[in-house]
Amino acid sequence: MDRRGFFALGGAGALYCTLAATGNIGSDPKQTRKAVAAADKAASKVRRPRRIALDPRDRDRFPTPDPQPGGQVREYWVQARSTMWDWAPSGRDEWMNAPIPAKKRKRQFRAFTYQLFSPGFVRALAPATMPGPTLHAEVGDTIVVHLRNADRHFNQAITMHPHGVRYTPDYDGSYFGPFTRVGGFIAPGEEFTYTWECPPDSVGVWPYHDHGPNHTLNTFRGLFGAIVIREKGAKAPDVEEIVWFHSLGPEVTGLNRVLHCINGYAYAGNTPTFRAKVGQDVAFHVIGGNNDFHTFHIHGHRWKDNGGQLNTDTPTVGPFETITARFVEDNPGRWMYHCHVMSHQDAGMAGWYIVDPA
Amino acid sequence: MDRRGFFALGGAGALYCTLAATGNIGSDPKQTRKAVAAADKAASKVRRPRRIALDPRDRDRFPTPDPQPGGQVREYWVQARSTMWDWAPSGRDEWMNAPIPAKKRKRQFRAFTYQLFSPGFVRALAPATMPGPTLHAEVGDTIVVHLRNADRHFNQAITMHPHGVRYTPDYDGSYFGPFTRVGGFIAPGEEFTYTWECPPDSVGVWPYHDHGPNHTLNTFRGLFGAIVIREKGAKAPDVEEIVWFHSLGPEVTGLNRVLHCINGYAYAGNTPTFRAKVGQDVAFHVIGGNNDFHTFHIHGHRWKDNGGQLNTDTPTVGPFETITARFVEDNPGRWMYHCHVMSHQDAGMAGWYIVDPA
Amino acid sequence: MDRRGFFALGGAGALYCTLAATGNIGSDPKQTRKAVAAADKAASKVRRPRRIALDPRDRDRFPTPDPQPGGQVREYWVQARSTMWDWAPSGRDEWMNAPIPAKKRKRQFRAFTYQLFSPGFVRALAPATMPGPTLHAEVGDTIVVHLRNADRHFNQAITMHPHGVRYTPDYDGSYFGPFTRVGGFIAPGEEFTYTWECPPDSVGVWPYHDHGPNHTLNTFRGLFGAIVIREKGAKAPDVEEIVWFHSLGPEVTGLNRVLHCINGYAYAGNTPTFRAKVGQDVAFHVIGGNNDFHTFHIHGHRWKDNGGQLNTDTPTVGPFETITARFVEDNPGRWMYHCHVMSHQDAGMAGWYIVDPA
Repeated sequence: MDRRGFFALGGAGALYCTLAATGNIGSDPKQTRKAVAAADKAASKVRRPRRIALDPRDRDRFPTPDPQPGGQVREYWVQARSTMWDWAPSGRDEWMNAPIPAKKRKRQFRAFTYQLFSPGFVRALAPATMPGPTLHAEVGDTIVVHLRNADRHFNQAITMHPHGVRYTPDYDGSYFGPFTRVGGFIAPGEEFTYTWECPPDSVGVWPYHDHGPNHTLNTFRGLFGAIVIREKGAKAPDVEEIVWFHSLGPEVTGLNRVLHCINGYAYAGNTPTFRAKVGQDVAFHVIGGNNDFHTFHIHGHRWKDNGGQLNTDTPTVGPFETITARFVEDNPGRWMYHCHVMSHQDAGMAGWYIVDPA
Repeated sequence: MDRRGFFALGGAGALYCTLAATGNIGSDPKQTRKAVAAADKAASKVRRPRRIALDPRDRDRFPTPDPQPGGQVREYWVQARSTMWDWAPSGRDEWMNAPIPAKKRKRQFRAFTYQLFSPGFVRALAPATMPGPTLHAEVGDTIVVHLRNADRHFNQAITMHPHGVRYTPDYDGSYFGPFTRVGGFIAPGEEFTYTWECPPDSVGVWPYHDHGPNHTLNTFRGLFGAIVIREKGAKAPDVEEIVWFHSLGPEVTGLNRVLHCINGYAYAGNTPTFRAKVGQDVAFHVIGGNNDFHTFHIHGHRWKDNGGQLNTDTPTVGPFETITARFVEDNPGRWMYHCHVMSHQDAGMAGWYIVDPA
Repeated sequence: MDRRGFFALGGAGALYCTLAATGNIGSDPKQTRKAVAAADKAASKVRRPRRIALDPRDRDRFPTPDPQPGGQVREYWVQARSTMWDWAPSGRDEWMNAPIPAKKRKRQFRAFTYQLFSPGFVRALAPATMPGPTLHAEVGDTIVVHLRNADRHFNQAITMHPHGVRYTPDYDGSYFGPFTRVGGFIAPGEEFTYTWECPPDSVGVWPYHDHGPNHTLNTFRGLFGAIVIREKGAKAPDVEEIVWFHSLGPEVTGLNRVLHCINGYAYAGNTPTFRAKVGQDVAFHVIGGNNDFHTFHIHGHRWKDNGGQLNTDTPTVGPFETITARFVEDNPGRWMYHCHVMSHQDAGMAGWYIVDPA
């Protein structure tokens, strides 16, 4: 496998041997398809590892935590499944008022998403989306996620690995090879219940994502979402948006170019059109995906940077890092928000933000 | 068009269809020339869009703002025009004491710059430079920019889009396709007057740049500059420098490699040689251009990072983000400032900073 | 030389002429070997420059500083020499429980490292490592480094350029072509003594690295380390780790892919396994190398970002920038720390962090 190939896919963890034998990913769509198919096949054959105890810590057992006094259990039922996805349902770029140079058939690919269900997985409460459901909690709460791997297409174990919260190794949600614990390998057809704590330093907005044996490919396909944790009793902003700056590359779409996306979509009119009113307390939480660094710009607006000292309108955000733009809305009109990496903006990472008068 | 081609040019907004039909940019200079020529041709044919009102906000009208009580109007006349530019006038790299491996003819390319004029565009007040004129204001002022598109070579509409200031949609200076307002399309031969406000959260140093229908290519060619906004009555630093870390790529220069530049120049002795005296209050405002992230290092100096908490001498700065290095000068001698991304430093992004005794 | 070639090596300073004539680096291992060999040959022929005084500052002479009252001299003997290095001694990736697809022979390459010696260079006090020895001081101290260039293989001048400390131009440790001072060119067989001051704004953790005539290649090969400067009398954390996020590319290893490494090693079980106990004050200082930006994640942990305001678990760190993760350990178990750029994580940039009960 050549160098480009190795990095286009990101190695895909345990699968690099397969990939190394398979060939090129990225520049040649046919080679890419073959290499991804081989990686997926290898991932589908990974069995729950027989655990070894290289270290005393590998034998430890941990109790499941309860909420702090006064705290609540925030319980979610989430199903992971692959689904066909259209990255540009309108077929057009509203910004440039032009058709997107890809036939509808070329806009469809098999994504992998987390979807919110009702208690007991009785029915879907929302469509399958990128990002998946936003999980909310306050300091002192526990977040309990019942995760069901309902996918039979890829037939691979998946997980949910959270940032920002506190968890014992069992609830890390990460495949660790021979050190994998229960939450690190949710096989097709299985359910697992994660319990995470929200100590005071969990306040913030954080990503969650797959960290199973094929985490890179499956996270790229859409297995990601956000967790919002506030101080106890803190008021939510009037408008609060989760904005994933991620890409859909050839290894995911089968196209020969990278789409720079927002919440699964590319190009204004497909990417979310956000909306607020003058006087509202507005927060955009921007999270990076994949391998790229971004700068987040909103036309007509400024805010304090994450340290609270500096006025900014274009801060840097890296992969799986979060930056927040929070301000009291004062400027009506149609605005654009976008990544200010010019090549990302031009490859789809732009959308509308429309502000109504008070 | 292959993937490399699409990204080398950054898509160029509305022009991706043309580019898609045209071919490869970046690796093959001949293909690059053809693709850029096609993009420029397409851009020169873009006419002022007939506005549509998809949303009530698209019909709103906005008054032009006045300065706050006690504030001033800061008025600038700026002409945009293409011009031939030499990225290494000395022909040498003073750091490595070596000739730059490019004939003079190869150092020339057609840039596009903003140039400061006297009131009423009577005469040029300064040469055409990268960056363009620095615009200064204080909180409570308005900045009024009379922008003239005097370019006939590229024959394309351009704009001036500011960061950091407050503006109504008319003065956003951005081409929005069918939602474009008056300030978003300044055709060749036209003039337009922007009026921008400076509320308290505008304090800082910010980029401005083209955001017209061919914004990526034309910003890369040199249509960028800076805005400095201070608290009312705040003293300027004794030495204050604007440092654009940007690149001139094959799509701009016709070369087969990327030059990593400072203010339009590559390699020490061509890049600016900055100068200060011991005891002076010194500020470097570093702004990223194009698509790349950088770290800014000055030999022999340290300062507080943007949050004011941490000692730093190599902070990250992303595209169209600003970081400021401000310190009281205490260290005489010849120093180097440079991007600490090694491949950028070696491709030209380095210069001298000479400090004299008090 | 094509564009890819120029950038894969990063230009290598004075050597770009040679490289330009030599050809491609990166995609073609054979071409890479030829180009690197030519660059090394050119670097081995660089002689101590005859100094010119283009500016009055080039003639200045500077006294060697003493410690402040109450400060100490912190004296180090450091030898720079090339050495064979194995980037994955175990031959396996413990995370994925898989052999690394490279024969032992392919894991060996010629590195270049700084090594700690006893006073007077009597004997090595530690093995040659990446990073080199960590230099410690407090505010008011001077750091005195006796650097010996003991390498005969590459036969090139090297230096030690520090960040964070204060130094006169003589002790900058940087090759400046015709403006090079004594500390900027330590030829094979030579020794040089650097003296650096630690004023109050030196508090922090900083990189040092080669800045000689072939600085890019030789820093990439391993000539880098860290400096830790504390307030006078400040207590060190109970556990304090230096974590270099750097790469070993084709130009260094001769392989056809980039290894994303931690302290010279790739893949868990080769990268450092860090260890702490519940209740301990733990600090990870993460420094970026080469050309890449990273985000640093530790499973199961959160901390305040560098500005002290924001909870984070995945901050951005750029080339030769430092970020610190400091927290009181409260979470026993086997954890993973890694770069959250997915392609870096998958190319080796991950390791174990094991926490024992109190």
